[in-house]
Amino acid sequence: MLADWLGPKAAALESRGLTRRLRARSAGERLIDLAGNDYLGLASDPRVVDAAADAVRVWGTGATASRLVTGTTALHEELETSLAAYTGHESALVFSSGYLANLGVVTALGGPGTLVVSDDHVHASLIDGSRLSRSRVEVVPHSDVDAVDKVLAERNEPHALILTESVFSVLSDEAPLEELSAVALVRQAVLVVDEAHGLGVSGGGRGSVAAAGLAGLDHVIVTMTLSKAMASQGGVVLGPFLLREHLINRARSFIYDTGLNPAACAAALAALHVLQAEPDRPAAIHTAAARLASACGVAPSAGAVVSVPMPGPREAVRAAEVCLEDGVRVGCFRPPSVPDGISRLRLTAHAGLSDTDLDRACTVIVNAIGRST
Amino acid sequence: MLADWLGPKAAALESRGLTRRLRARSAGERLIDLAGNDYLGLASDPRVVDAAADAVRVWGTGATASRLVTGTTALHEELETSLAAYTGHESALVFSSGYLANLGVVTALGGPGTLVVSDDHVHASLIDGSRLSRSRVEVVPHSDVDAVDKVLAERNEPHALILTESVFSVLSDEAPLEELSAVALVRQAVLVVDEAHGLGVSGGGRGSVAAAGLAGLDHVIVTMTLSKAMASQGGVVLGPFLLREHLINRARSFIYDTGLNPAACAAALAALHVLQAEPDRPAAIHTAAARLASACGVAPSAGAVVSVPMPGPREAVRAAEVCLEDGVRVGCFRPPSVPDGISRLRLTAHAGLSDTDLDRACTVIVNAIGRST
Repeated sequence: MLADWLGPKAAALESRGLTRRLRARSAGERLIDLAGNDYLGLASDPRVVDAAADAVRVWGTGATASRLVTGTTALHEELETSLAAYTGHESALVFSSGYLANLGVVTALGGPGTLVVSDDHVHASLIDGSRLSRSRVEVVPHSDVDAVDKVLAERNEPHALILTESVFSVLSDEAPLEELSAVALVRQAVLVVDEAHGLGVSGGGRGSVAAAGLAGLDHVIVTMTLSKAMASQGGVVLGPFLLREHLINRARSFIYDTGLNPAACAAALAALHVLQAEPDRPAAIHTAAARLASACGVAPSAGAVVSVPMPGPREAVRAAEVCLEDGVRVGCFRPPSVPDGISRLRLTAHAGLSDTDLDRACTVIVNAIGRST
Repeated sequence: MLADWLGPKAAALESRGLTRRLRARSAGERLIDLAGNDYLGLASDPRVVDAAADAVRVWGTGATASRLVTGTTALHEELETSLAAYTGHESALVFSSGYLANLGVVTALGGPGTLVVSDDHVHASLIDGSRLSRSRVEVVPHSDVDAVDKVLAERNEPHALILTESVFSVLSDEAPLEELSAVALVRQAVLVVDEAHGLGVSGGGRGSVAAAGLAGLDHVIVTMTLSKAMASQGGVVLGPFLLREHLINRARSFIYDTGLNPAACAAALAALHVLQAEPDRPAAIHTAAARLASACGVAPSAGAVVSVPMPGPREAVRAAEVCLEDGVRVGCFRPPSVPDGISRLRLTAHAGLSDTDLDRACTVIVNAIGRST
């Protein structure tokens, strides 16, 4: 049954060079990593590792239940309070993944009475949240504030959400947050900003929303992942207390999901503490990103990711393989993970790269691109 | 903005006695826990704890990227191979939560050409997956095989999924898996069984699908959570190799999500090893569940959960509070988390309960029910 159904689909994908395969990392690999999202270089930091290992011993290996039953520990609350304080929001609510955080906030606020205005570069989780919310959804051109204003002005729904990211994944460009916030205020809408690539990176670490002076406002909601700069797993929604209460009562992806495991809570909390103690770490990301961009002849990016356009998916994959053979792991963006159909190399700068690593990485990548195109 | 929008909603919920609030556990609590889903009592088992702590040191605190980029470690592969072998399937794919596993499988197989036939008691994540899949969805009465057969026979779609659970959450009853499988075969449909409450509990631990001799068949897919009997976090989809490949390429909740953190992988793997080494653990769950059911005067359940109907949500909450004051933590089922509007006490039996604990728990619960109704 499944063989007849899925076999032809697998063959069709293969013939287009688009089959994705998992490749497992082994322990103790000696590679320069420009593929992972450990932006602050903290996933193997002894302080973060110790905190996670200690949490397992104190709290056990799982949350054991949904947050509302018995899956909320004092650790979850401390993480929420600390994240809210650091980023300038009244409150925070932690989900077991960033994907579920985005589903949760859009579905809990969406519905027939809510228009969702979505930038056409937002993450899959915001798109899925929009679809799941049963709202009318208007997808607007990337970072086009006038288009947002127009659809908001013409709406009949009493409520509206504007969905954007602070730093976008593929192009690593920044959203016009201040303009979007102003439009939201005039049009009585709520601005939802995904800071997956902003936390720990932009605004000195606090994210672009805080840097723009928008954190804590009554019409601004922020979502974040804990799996990138925070070196862990999980997601968080930040905003007014009433929003947190609403999500606890209405977000199905919060209510019907097991709480984040204690090790992940503790790791994220420890990573946040390191970031607060060492506020220069975000600047190191930008320095590394600028060097990578310069070596590859592309414009500097706002975030940690440097995207290098390639002729097609096969060339992107080949270049990444050549890099790997030379000891540098890089990522690829291929359809359907790109907003414009253009395949790219994805180079992630992070604070853990030494000058020697960066020099070596630039040489290897430039060579690999030359050999693959 | 959010205050005007959400304030009245919060007040309305409060007036109906349905406001949900988080209550944090503190470390070192001395309670008899009948609320969590640590069915095998392994979340604090030293073997499982050590494995998780070791994994953090070897692999770091996060997967650092999506599974397809660099978020797959040898640990993820070992967990997948071990789970597939134990439950009798060709392959397994681990997601960062059970919620996302269910979203992934239904959306990756759903669409306009697929009818989804969904039991009306299935979990929120399967319902959300159905909505998100853009399939036509037929919700059928609980465990009604004839109704499933009828809608399958009358369909125009070339493909169809039957969604059910092996052991249901609220009533803890079992689905008629063999009959559903037979109907699926005749009607050229795929049976998707959520074993969230079956793994480690039914079929001697391997789940109800294995016990029914259905594991490994080409028209049967199983999903599981790792956050209950496996004492961890994450979810898994089990089935033919081609299904795994299809999900890797098509399941958005897999592709666009960070991989499960190493500590959670290692904990689930260690819990599975304990279960294999100590195959009598599932029987202890059923013994405890039978005693709880008998004490409360309700019928024995197929799974670990014993549900005790209460007059309303306030009485259920009050009884749970009385239990807590007396040192026993129990859960509640309240609308909208019940399929029939009936609020219940939720008592979770697990393998870690001593006879003394069970005696004490029965006394406390019976007293609390009496004082609250």
